[in-house]
Amino acid sequence: MKLIWKPFTLQFKHPFRIAHGVRSSTAVMYIRIDHEGFSGYGEASMPPYLGESHESVAAFLGRLDLAQFKDPFDISSIMAYVDQVADGNTAAKASVDIALHDLACKLLGKTVHAYYGADPDRAPFTSFTIGMDEPELIRSKIEETDGFPILKVKLGGTNDRLIIETVHASTTKIFSVDVNQGWTDREYALDMIYRMKEMNVSFVEQPFDRFNLDDHAWLKEQSPLPIIADESCQRYTDIEHCRHAFHGINIKLMKCTGLSEAKRMIDYAQKCQLKILIGCMSESSCAVSAAAQLSPFAQWADLDGPLLIKNDIFEGLKFVCGKITLSGLPGNGAYLKETVFD
Amino acid sequence: MKLIWKPFTLQFKHPFRIAHGVRSSTAVMYIRIDHEGFSGYGEASMPPYLGESHESVAAFLGRLDLAQFKDPFDISSIMAYVDQVADGNTAAKASVDIALHDLACKLLGKTVHAYYGADPDRAPFTSFTIGMDEPELIRSKIEETDGFPILKVKLGGTNDRLIIETVHASTTKIFSVDVNQGWTDREYALDMIYRMKEMNVSFVEQPFDRFNLDDHAWLKEQSPLPIIADESCQRYTDIEHCRHAFHGINIKLMKCTGLSEAKRMIDYAQKCQLKILIGCMSESSCAVSAAAQLSPFAQWADLDGPLLIKNDIFEGLKFVCGKITLSGLPGNGAYLKETVFD
Repeated sequence: MKLIWKPFTLQFKHPFRIAHGVRSSTAVMYIRIDHEGFSGYGEASMPPYLGESHESVAAFLGRLDLAQFKDPFDISSIMAYVDQVADGNTAAKASVDIALHDLACKLLGKTVHAYYGADPDRAPFTSFTIGMDEPELIRSKIEETDGFPILKVKLGGTNDRLIIETVHASTTKIFSVDVNQGWTDREYALDMIYRMKEMNVSFVEQPFDRFNLDDHAWLKEQSPLPIIADESCQRYTDIEHCRHAFHGINIKLMKCTGLSEAKRMIDYAQKCQLKILIGCMSESSCAVSAAAQLSPFAQWADLDGPLLIKNDIFEGLKFVCGKITLSGLPGNGAYLKETVFD
Repeated sequence: MKLIWKPFTLQFKHPFRIAHGVRSSTAVMYIRIDHEGFSGYGEASMPPYLGESHESVAAFLGRLDLAQFKDPFDISSIMAYVDQVADGNTAAKASVDIALHDLACKLLGKTVHAYYGADPDRAPFTSFTIGMDEPELIRSKIEETDGFPILKVKLGGTNDRLIIETVHASTTKIFSVDVNQGWTDREYALDMIYRMKEMNVSFVEQPFDRFNLDDHAWLKEQSPLPIIADESCQRYTDIEHCRHAFHGINIKLMKCTGLSEAKRMIDYAQKCQLKILIGCMSESSCAVSAAAQLSPFAQWADLDGPLLIKNDIFEGLKFVCGKITLSGLPGNGAYLKETVFD
C-alpha cells in the first residue's frame, strides 16, 4: 500500500463565530492510499484550537510505513500500528482510517454502511449550524436554512438568552444547542435549559469545561433535556470516565481516529444506553461522507460541514430537506471531482 | 373493568381523494375502560371500504365481557379473548387494545413507549399526505405543508405521471408514493418507479391488488426503490405469506388489532429484515398517539391523521417540523379535551 498526501484549505461561505473566536477557513490534509489499482481517499481536518496543522499531519504521515502491510482488509491491525506511532494526532490518524475503509470497501464493491450493517433508511436528519451573531444576522441566517428542519445554535457567549429567544421567535424548527464549554455557573445553566425546554430544543452539548465532570453530573440529574459530551469525550476510553456525567456523546472521526474506533464507541455507548450524536469538524464531503456511513446508528447528526464551505473538491452524501442520503457508491460514497494529487 | 363507548364522526379539513373515491368524513368509535379510578381511552376508525361501522363496532363491543378480567396488566390474555369473540372487527379490537395500554400504563405511571423500550429520540418524521388532485390543487396543497419535509403522494389513478411530475417540479421535499393497489401492469409500474428513483422518492406502497403477490415479488426483484405492503399485510400471520414479495410492511393499529400485535409484527419484521412503516387510517390524536409510541422502531411514519381533521377531541403527540414528538404523559400520551362519555 502506498500513501500520498496533499495540504488544502477549506474556505467558509460565511465567517464562523463560536465561543473561541471567528474563523474564515480551516486547514485540511487530503490523503490517498493506493493498492492494486484501487485508491482510497481520506481527510484530516485541523481546526486551529485542536493543535494539529499541515506540518504536524505531514510529519505524522511521513513516519508511517504502510508498505509493511499486505492486507488492506486488516484495518484493525493497521490502525493499531498507526495509533502507537505517536500520541495525539487524532485527525491525521483519522485520515488514514478513512482512506483504509474507502479502499477496502472499494475492493469489496461494498458501501461502508453495508460493511457495518447500518440501514441507510434509518439515517437521521442533519442539523444546520447557526454561529453566534447579532439577532438580525441570526434571523437572516435562519431564513437561509431553507428546507432544513433542524438547526444547531452555538452558545457560550454573553448574549445567550438573547440568541435563543431570537431563534425561538424566528422559527418553528427543532434546534439543538452547543455551548462549547462556554458556561461556568450550573444554576445559570439549569435556568437556561428550563427556558429551552419550553422551546423546540432537542439537546444541549458540552455546557461546561471538558474537565468539569462534577457540574456536568449534577446537571445531568437536574436537566429536563439531554446533556451531550463533546470536548469531554474524544476517544473510546473517555466513555468510561464521562458516562456518569452525560446522557450521550458526540462522536467525531477527527477526535477518535476514524471509523474503526467510532464504531467501537457506538457499540459501547449503546450498551451503556448513552445517546449518540454523530458530528464533524469543518470538513469536506470526503470525511463527512465517511461519518455519514455510521449515522444510522445515531439519534442525531450534525454533519453540515460540506454545506458551510465553498470549495468542496469531493462529492458524496446528499441532504434532501436535511435528511442524510447515502450514495450507493462503494467505499465511503464520495468521489474526487478535481485532481489534487498530481 | 368497565367498558363504555361513544360513536363520533371525524370531519376532514379537505375532502380526501384516493384510488377508491372521495370522502369528507370518517366514522370512529371512542371507548373508555375504567378500573380503580383510572380511565384508558381507545379509538376505532372505520373507513367505509373496510367493512366496519358504528353499528358493527357497537355490536362487537356489546358482546365483550371484560368484567371477567381482574388484572388490567394481563393485556395479552384479554386480547386473546377479544380476538376470538368474532372474526374481523380489527378496528373494534384495536380500540380495546389501545384503551388497555392506556389504562395499564397510567396505572404504572409510565409511557407506552417506555413500556415497550422505544427511544423517543429515535421517532421518525411523519409524512404529510397529498390526495389525488389536479396539478393546480396539488401545488397549492404542497404550499400548505409548511415545515413538513416529507410528503406522501396518493397514486393509482389515470394521471399518475402528471401527478408525480407536478410534485417533483413543485418541491425539493422527500416524498413516498402510495398506489393503494391501483396499478395492474408490472412493466408500467417498473417504468414509473425508475422515473421516481430520479426524484426524491423514498418508497412505493402497495402497487398491485392485495392478492397479487406474484407481480409484487417480480417488482421487488427489479425495483430500485423499496416496495412496501399495506393492504397485502394486515395482521401478524400475513407477514409469513407476503415477506417474499415486499421489502417492508405498513403496520396500522386498525388493521392488526392494536399495539400488542403491532409490536409482535415489528419484532418479526426486524427478524426478517423487512422495513417498517407505521401508518394510520383517518384517526384522531387518541389512536395516533398510541401508534406513535411504537414509531421509534420504524424506518418511516405516516401518522398525519390528526392533521387532516378539524374536530380532534384528543390532544397528544405533536409534530415539530414533522418530527414526531411524544408527550411524557403516562399511557398513550393523549388526553380528552371534551366530555363525550356523559
